[in-house]
Amino acid sequence: MKYSGQARLLVAVDCIIFGFDGDNFKILLIQRGFAPEKKKWSLMGGFIQPEESLEIAANRILKKLTGLEGVYMEQLQAFSNPDRDPVERTIAVAYFALIDIQKYQKQLSTDYHAEWFLLDKMPKLILDHNPMVEIAKNRLRYKAALHPLLFELLPEKFTIPQLQALYEGLYSTTFDKRNFSRKLLSTGLLIRQKEKDKENSRKGAFYFKLDKLKYSDNFDAFLKFIPNPDKFIS
Amino acid sequence: MKYSGQARLLVAVDCIIFGFDGDNFKILLIQRGFAPEKKKWSLMGGFIQPEESLEIAANRILKKLTGLEGVYMEQLQAFSNPDRDPVERTIAVAYFALIDIQKYQKQLSTDYHAEWFLLDKMPKLILDHNPMVEIAKNRLRYKAALHPLLFELLPEKFTIPQLQALYEGLYSTTFDKRNFSRKLLSTGLLIRQKEKDKENSRKGAFYFKLDKLKYSDNFDAFLKFIPNPDKFIS
Repeated sequence: MKYSGQARLLVAVDCIIFGFDGDNFKILLIQRGFAPEKKKWSLMGGFIQPEESLEIAANRILKKLTGLEGVYMEQLQAFSNPDRDPVERTIAVAYFALIDIQKYQKQLSTDYHAEWFLLDKMPKLILDHNPMVEIAKNRLRYKAALHPLLFELLPEKFTIPQLQALYEGLYSTTFDKRNFSRKLLSTGLLIRQKEKDKENSRKGAFYFKLDKLKYSDNFDAFLKFIPNPDKFIS
Repeated sequence: MKYSGQARLLVAVDCIIFGFDGDNFKILLIQRGFAPEKKKWSLMGGFIQPEESLEIAANRILKKLTGLEGVYMEQLQAFSNPDRDPVERTIAVAYFALIDIQKYQKQLSTDYHAEWFLLDKMPKLILDHNPMVEIAKNRLRYKAALHPLLFELLPEKFTIPQLQALYEGLYSTTFDKRNFSRKLLSTGLLIRQKEKDKENSRKGAFYFKLDKLKYSDNFDAFLKFIPNPDKFIS
């Protein structure tokens, strides 16, 4: 049985993969393999198959185009402007993830020609992929103001300058060093370690660990740390 | 020109309309007009037309089935389980809104047989509409912890018991009266008026107005008020 008299449309999935390499925020892009706009920079995208959920399609497409597997992607939203694809009307559902670049380095083999770009220096992308990235960035900024997700990108022991680089990268801003450090420590959520990182400055920077238990109990202490996520969301 | 060798699918839109009537949180439902599951309770749904964006389809469908016009709906997410519709594979994109029931009462004419249900006493819905509503409720709880959107449902002048009913309704919980009132007033965002509402209690309850300018400047004062929105999100 079928519903009669209704239009059937192409549905595509596009994957927005953000990464942090310890110093910089980046985005993973590929060169589109088919016309139109062949060879132009693009998100990893493809059409959903009849038997797939969108999540399964997103994972299949990401693996096929980059080699990456087991990346937890979250649904961003559907993009449905009737003119968004000049060839044929296609509804695209975008998925996004934020990953530790080091952790996935081996999977991302050179067979695939996927490349990491600095988020601030991303090329122009095909179709409506640039606005998709903007919306994903905003969603991530919002989430990171409420969730410990950024900590998941840091090694177990990290320095305050590292944490600051991470936040500055995502929010495309700079924070005053002394204030950042003071506010962060005042949350009581970081445990100072005995060792220092001496590679990145003469004086050295103490390592810290996140007190995860305290973190989940004192969620609001962290909220005050990015007091107004809206300010950063365009 | 067309993309070749790709499957084309039905795409539907489902509208989740929450409302507040001054005392209670409600949800708007209709009885489905076609098979399967004809006459069972349902969200307002229909198929997207080839020339429509999802937003335009959502507005057309909501108007057609309830009479409501000009309701700002936000996209929730796409639901894509291949078995979600037993007749034919259909991807559904859900939209949601929270409206002031009084404001739209006239538009919602009796021609349409749409009915408001208490959110806690909603019937079983067709297909995957119940989980859609759960996800929408969570999104709203999250948003309301960060945004003044609940104030938009109250009259310009409101009492603290009214505000408490609104929050208790959305978060399906009860707050201690004295604490609620103390925390709320400590934000410094409410301006007490001279008049009292004497209809709902012998002692009467002062009216308040929201200091909107202060509200946007002191966003974090409000955040502490629902300190851990995650706690309410299943």
